[in-house]
Amino acid sequence: MRKFAAEKSNNLLAHRKICAVSLQHPTASVFSSQSHQNPLPQSSILLRFLSSAASNPSAPSESMASDYSSTPIKIDSINPKVLECEYAVRGEIVNLAQKLQEDLKVNPDSHPFNEIIYCNIGNPQSLGQQPITFFREVLALCDHPAILDKGETQGIFSADSIERAFQILDQIPGRATGAYSHSQGIKGLRDTICSGIEARDGFPADPNDIFLTDGASPAVHMMMQLLIRSENDGILCPIPQYPLYSASIALHGGSLVPYYLDEATGWGLEVSDVKKQLEAARSKGIDVRALVVINPGNPTGQVLAESNQQQIVDFCKNEGLVLLADEVYQENIYVPDKQFHSFKKVARSMGYGEKDISLVSFQSVSKGYYGECGKRGGYMEVTGFAPEIREQMYKLASVNLCSNISGQILASLVMSPPKVGDESYESYTAEREGILSSLARRAKTLEDALNSLEGVTCNRAEGAMYLFPRISLPNKAIEAAKSVKTAPDAFYARRLLNATGVVVVPGSGFGQVPGTWHFRCTILPQEDRIPAIVSRLTDFHKAFMDEYRD
Amino acid sequence: MRKFAAEKSNNLLAHRKICAVSLQHPTASVFSSQSHQNPLPQSSILLRFLSSAASNPSAPSESMASDYSSTPIKIDSINPKVLECEYAVRGEIVNLAQKLQEDLKVNPDSHPFNEIIYCNIGNPQSLGQQPITFFREVLALCDHPAILDKGETQGIFSADSIERAFQILDQIPGRATGAYSHSQGIKGLRDTICSGIEARDGFPADPNDIFLTDGASPAVHMMMQLLIRSENDGILCPIPQYPLYSASIALHGGSLVPYYLDEATGWGLEVSDVKKQLEAARSKGIDVRALVVINPGNPTGQVLAESNQQQIVDFCKNEGLVLLADEVYQENIYVPDKQFHSFKKVARSMGYGEKDISLVSFQSVSKGYYGECGKRGGYMEVTGFAPEIREQMYKLASVNLCSNISGQILASLVMSPPKVGDESYESYTAEREGILSSLARRAKTLEDALNSLEGVTCNRAEGAMYLFPRISLPNKAIEAAKSVKTAPDAFYARRLLNATGVVVVPGSGFGQVPGTWHFRCTILPQEDRIPAIVSRLTDFHKAFMDEYRD
Repeated sequence: MRKFAAEKSNNLLAHRKICAVSLQHPTASVFSSQSHQNPLPQSSILLRFLSSAASNPSAPSESMASDYSSTPIKIDSINPKVLECEYAVRGEIVNLAQKLQEDLKVNPDSHPFNEIIYCNIGNPQSLGQQPITFFREVLALCDHPAILDKGETQGIFSADSIERAFQILDQIPGRATGAYSHSQGIKGLRDTICSGIEARDGFPADPNDIFLTDGASPAVHMMMQLLIRSENDGILCPIPQYPLYSASIALHGGSLVPYYLDEATGWGLEVSDVKKQLEAARSKGIDVRALVVINPGNPTGQVLAESNQQQIVDFCKNEGLVLLADEVYQENIYVPDKQFHSFKKVARSMGYGEKDISLVSFQSVSKGYYGECGKRGGYMEVTGFAPEIREQMYKLASVNLCSNISGQILASLVMSPPKVGDESYESYTAEREGILSSLARRAKTLEDALNSLEGVTCNRAEGAMYLFPRISLPNKAIEAAKSVKTAPDAFYARRLLNATGVVVVPGSGFGQVPGTWHFRCTILPQEDRIPAIVSRLTDFHKAFMDEYRD
Repeated sequence: MRKFAAEKSNNLLAHRKICAVSLQHPTASVFSSQSHQNPLPQSSILLRFLSSAASNPSAPSESMASDYSSTPIKIDSINPKVLECEYAVRGEIVNLAQKLQEDLKVNPDSHPFNEIIYCNIGNPQSLGQQPITFFREVLALCDHPAILDKGETQGIFSADSIERAFQILDQIPGRATGAYSHSQGIKGLRDTICSGIEARDGFPADPNDIFLTDGASPAVHMMMQLLIRSENDGILCPIPQYPLYSASIALHGGSLVPYYLDEATGWGLEVSDVKKQLEAARSKGIDVRALVVINPGNPTGQVLAESNQQQIVDFCKNEGLVLLADEVYQENIYVPDKQFHSFKKVARSMGYGEKDISLVSFQSVSKGYYGECGKRGGYMEVTGFAPEIREQMYKLASVNLCSNISGQILASLVMSPPKVGDESYESYTAEREGILSSLARRAKTLEDALNSLEGVTCNRAEGAMYLFPRISLPNKAIEAAKSVKTAPDAFYARRLLNATGVVVVPGSGFGQVPGTWHFRCTILPQEDRIPAIVSRLTDFHKAFMDEYRD
């Protein structure tokens, strides 16, 4: 397998920007079943992320590349950073799924299933989750304020949604919901968000620290753009990681410096291990600028303990690293023994103020119980940067003018939902609790089902929206994958899709300890569909293992 | 002045990415009044764009930079491309305006005016323009589809808005308006957009060619990201230009290769001049990859003649350049003798097909008569790129998942407004014509007023949303500007703001022939405000000239 990985690497396009950091993986021994076959990697784990370029099913298929010989742009003359970047969550496997879906439209009997179930991406409403009524009422009223004072409106909108819409309109200069806002977002909405942060953390929040963005992704890009000067700048990222980080680092020409989460301890984050990776990177001349922490974890679902977070804060402070805290799953906690603590709250509780630690917290309306992915709302809270750096952030935000106003409004709503006494409070609470408790049940059912499969182990999803089971694949399956030039977990995922219509993302898209194989599967299909999914998955896995058992 | 420009240049931060292309300006003679004092520049015009870094009024003012000495990120350790990038439309002058606005809130008598009038940016609804009712009705219904089948809804929404909302929901898989869509946007909406393009152009359009984006800006960034590999890659841009282009080229580390528009011929675009600039750039080793054309022009307001567009198409084809066509003002035409033609229509009319020319057309919901800036909707239509390049564009789009769904819906609506026979048709037409005819009157009134000022000449706004008058500043004013280290037009704009509350953008933010001075002023204040603005502007200008007359 080591040889295989090396061969794959040799086939890849130029990797000029990849950090050649030796990994010193402290938990290798727990993977002893594979690790004796798989010596620890001597070069960047990023090499292992890169799979063949995604093919876009919507590109005009009738045209051969050669027909474009008279057009100026060739594949070897585009920005190589674009070629290097990969994003498995919408990669090859999803393109195949879209093709199968087209097949089913033409002929419902073309495959041994009648629908595609997209478990590749945290996209709750695509799988039937309904939006929170109050949020949508307010958005509709802000979109068309002309109906606010009509009698009919009171018959079909809740009283508090009407009141909230009036409040929000009053916060928008000139009530102009169709105008560009301040580049950081509408000030009044940032005030509301800060009240929500203060209620959550018990520490003050400043609207000048809030940058509203079209989802969390542009905020992550903005920070990478600010921090990365060249391939000699490194960003510490967890492995496994959400591939937005590897993609953004690649696009901005930096180096991803990996640190492993420990699967054996529920995807634990060992600061001593992070420190080893930091030192290894520094010894190679990499200027490590920031540490990314995803909490709750994606794809891994763990929720960090407060004591662990304190270690991380101290580590960043002592090592001079910006702490980039991906906290978009802060509302998605499924186990009673775990609780979300924002890194800002943890840092402030330790007595660290604005000038002690540089901390960016990312939040999104795409996740949480609301799952409003299509609205592209989100924000980052930026603390501990000097005013002249903040000016540069403001300039970057202003080049794109502002984020979309509906997303801005929604970001304020999720940080300030209906309260006791509001007309919508009961229905809102019922909708929220219904979604969260159902997600918790789905997570447990899927986790148990996965753990019952031969050669599969799966940590619990304490939070977020995913399970990330490890699959011990038989050597014959690994050889079969090799023969079709595919990573073994991608081979498994492709077979799963072709057999069941269930779309998962291979672990190689997120990074994993070499020689281990995983996939990420969302817990998002509606609850009444879970038994069928479990049954399809179980049947497929059994047949797969029977076919390839050594 | 030449000396002054050189001095300024020396003060600037490192310009590693700036194209050192000698400008051979073919129309120098028409500016003879200045040109004998101002020899043509021997180095990149970009040097002249760069002004002092914008200061963000919302940055915590109580903190001195030195207090952040223990935080890791310093101004000289961030990405230098970020430092280099400038965006005057929201730059220093706007920050001053925001400060004055705060002053007025505290004390309405603090300045010799009672309000700030933002003529710096094409943001119609911020100045009182009302949204098109039909568009907002459909958006509201799509935001909250639960009310679609309620009786009250028919009382407060038009029948065709309800019908359109149903149609759109049927185009969204699972009717999930809160789900991430396909990375290029919802297929059914792209179909609608293509029908609109076909009706406009009389040539087929393919939904696979459409990438829906959060306004046009991310689409421009995506193309720059794809095309620019290093400072040796150049993009031909008009001067004056919309500073999104210079900002995006700077952020992606490329070189802006300038070509001048000819003010004397109504901001004419001379292909022979563009060719000279191209050759000069090539002789310096710059690989020029694309030509940006803004039609109707921003900040210059000209509408290209079809014959001129044909020359441009042939030029791009012959020289192997991608044609990046900024067509966001396609609905904003104010003179009967000019008409908008899309570059795709022009190319197809010339017999050039998909494989003959690489062409990207940018469109936005922020402009047009609708002016829905805050919705952040837009698209690019991409033709003439090989499938493997299109795959890379798709991958870039997928890293950010998708653009916001409300913006996507609105993009489909503006390309497919109510038609004869629809219930909303009459009111929609009245709203549209009311806005466009008023904008035409405002443009004419402001143009005439500007042309009546001493030393001011102003081409007509044939389209777009701006006037870009040239001001012949007295030497004493130029000296006064120099003494406070400010560009003379920025000095004028600042004085104008302080005296009148009217915010305009100095020409130096867009680029201009050296030694000429301009400002960009939108035509967007509501019509009943125009006389007061004209009067304030006239009084100010007279006083300014009296103060500084040589």
